[in-house]
Amino acid sequence: MSIAPNREHVIPDNLTIHDLLSVAPMSMSVDGQRVLLDGIDLLDIVENHETALYVYDENHIRHQLTQYVSCFKKEYENSSIVYAAKAFCSVVMDKIVAECGAGIDVAGGGELAIAKAASFPVERIFMQGNNKSHKEIAEAIDAHVACFVVDTIEELHKINDYAQIKGAVQKIILRICPGIEADTHSYIQTANEDSKFGFNIRNGAAYEAIKEALELENLELTGFHCHIGSQIFELSSYKEAIEVMFAFMEDVRRDFDFVARDLDLGGGLGIKYTIYDQNSSIEEYAHVITSAVKHCAARYDYPLPHLIVEPGRSILSNAGITLYTVGSVKTIP
Amino acid sequence: MSIAPNREHVIPDNLTIHDLLSVAPMSMSVDGQRVLLDGIDLLDIVENHETALYVYDENHIRHQLTQYVSCFKKEYENSSIVYAAKAFCSVVMDKIVAECGAGIDVAGGGELAIAKAASFPVERIFMQGNNKSHKEIAEAIDAHVACFVVDTIEELHKINDYAQIKGAVQKIILRICPGIEADTHSYIQTANEDSKFGFNIRNGAAYEAIKEALELENLELTGFHCHIGSQIFELSSYKEAIEVMFAFMEDVRRDFDFVARDLDLGGGLGIKYTIYDQNSSIEEYAHVITSAVKHCAARYDYPLPHLIVEPGRSILSNAGITLYTVGSVKTIP
Repeated sequence: MSIAPNREHVIPDNLTIHDLLSVAPMSMSVDGQRVLLDGIDLLDIVENHETALYVYDENHIRHQLTQYVSCFKKEYENSSIVYAAKAFCSVVMDKIVAECGAGIDVAGGGELAIAKAASFPVERIFMQGNNKSHKEIAEAIDAHVACFVVDTIEELHKINDYAQIKGAVQKIILRICPGIEADTHSYIQTANEDSKFGFNIRNGAAYEAIKEALELENLELTGFHCHIGSQIFELSSYKEAIEVMFAFMEDVRRDFDFVARDLDLGGGLGIKYTIYDQNSSIEEYAHVITSAVKHCAARYDYPLPHLIVEPGRSILSNAGITLYTVGSVKTIP
Repeated sequence: MSIAPNREHVIPDNLTIHDLLSVAPMSMSVDGQRVLLDGIDLLDIVENHETALYVYDENHIRHQLTQYVSCFKKEYENSSIVYAAKAFCSVVMDKIVAECGAGIDVAGGGELAIAKAASFPVERIFMQGNNKSHKEIAEAIDAHVACFVVDTIEELHKINDYAQIKGAVQKIILRICPGIEADTHSYIQTANEDSKFGFNIRNGAAYEAIKEALELENLELTGFHCHIGSQIFELSSYKEAIEVMFAFMEDVRRDFDFVARDLDLGGGLGIKYTIYDQNSSIEEYAHVITSAVKHCAARYDYPLPHLIVEPGRSILSNAGITLYTVGSVKTIP
């Protein structure tokens, strides 16, 4: 696999405003000495707020969300975009996500509380996290979230126990660790063999979890989840993960007579931090993912699952800028 | 110069409790299965607070502060210990610092506000920071802090202007960049030639600042400051910095007829993060610094200055622990 892009470039002398705008929010423009965001002079923004100041471009965020929803729907009708709230979580952000037709993935009680404060449609809330406490599990079940993405055997029992008390049957999907080493920094690979995330296929943990999940009466297993990492530039990593997941799902169908209705492929699309990064478009990403899923489903004669992807960083990182005030200048020869 | 210690050790099988306690707070002890801090079972602390929980050992903090004060006084009567509040800043911490006879170095308006809330003796407050705003400068002058450590020419004017308005004469020392590359990670070296801190000796910035400071009527220049970096294990780096500073002060005496009354040597004593780190004791550090100052003063026949050191990390890093609750356990072959 290819190496993530080298960030140690020297800024060239002939850097143009066009170059800089390629990593800026889409509503940013330059008019002589003025820099505008959605028509508003940045200096006017600073005048009304203290710096350092984060400013997000709502147009950009809505554009990215809408792109995700429409590019996937176009290629694969039975798909859902679920925003990974860990990328940026606030009541206003959650409301924008809901308005754009996406779901939300909350990684813990704090993010769940914010989603609730935003009156986020509960049937689109996914409860994630590899170390959910009893309290967080209870809060999520009480909130009637759509689904838990389960990470450990203990968690299966915690969810089942609380669902039983509430007389509920909780939908869950199991996070699977496919043993892929994605083309990103090793710190943000999340699907290699010794990851802290998910149930490992090769060591039998995944099978053990399926057996347990199918036996527990207050759980309804609906499918599987995998997330291979963040800042992924080589889309073939996704293809590889999808192939591993389908081979696994085929084994599971054979051994447990269980067909996955949901397939959640996580997020991780690489974004352009510098003008040198060669990132893929959402359209390309959607095409690679949906083609691979359709291809694998055909190969195994597997019913096409409900496809879920969980973008986070790629929705808003380039939507934000930080404004500073220069306090003093030091000239060094 | 030597390289900072390698942190990529493998934990040996025969690690003893004695090894672990060598990096723990001094009041920590082990009694069978119980781990105690100052006689209190850590599990009892957790029962009364949520985790993750930071716990500091007040005995340890007081011991370190008292060691600094006494080790320096023993070797060099005219010395002051000034705690670098950036290491950990709270009202209680500031009160402990004051009680132990040390001063405090505040790097900005936030830390100044906390020192004021702790009723810290103003004659022992040093105002630091390489980008002080007009507002912070006014607050510090209004609070009657002992001294400003000045970092830029603009700052000299800002302080002078406000002092003039208040009819005050503000004591200042100039932060000098001696051009030393200390034996620590390049990210926490602060005295190399292209540092953002201080006035560079070689490029003339230091002379320019002295000239300006001596001319401005509401400033009283009392001496110089230098800080070569953090996590310094090789005490000879300090000796080298002291030699550069005295050569510089001798030049300044000749060219400006100005004798420094204050010499502030910053902080930076390396601490033991792992059992493998070979750190120096406060006693050794005090001995090296005071010997070098006395030696250089004798060599140049320079009046012994009031000596200031600014320890931070070495006062409390090993005084603190973090307590977590294990949520779930995943076994990986």
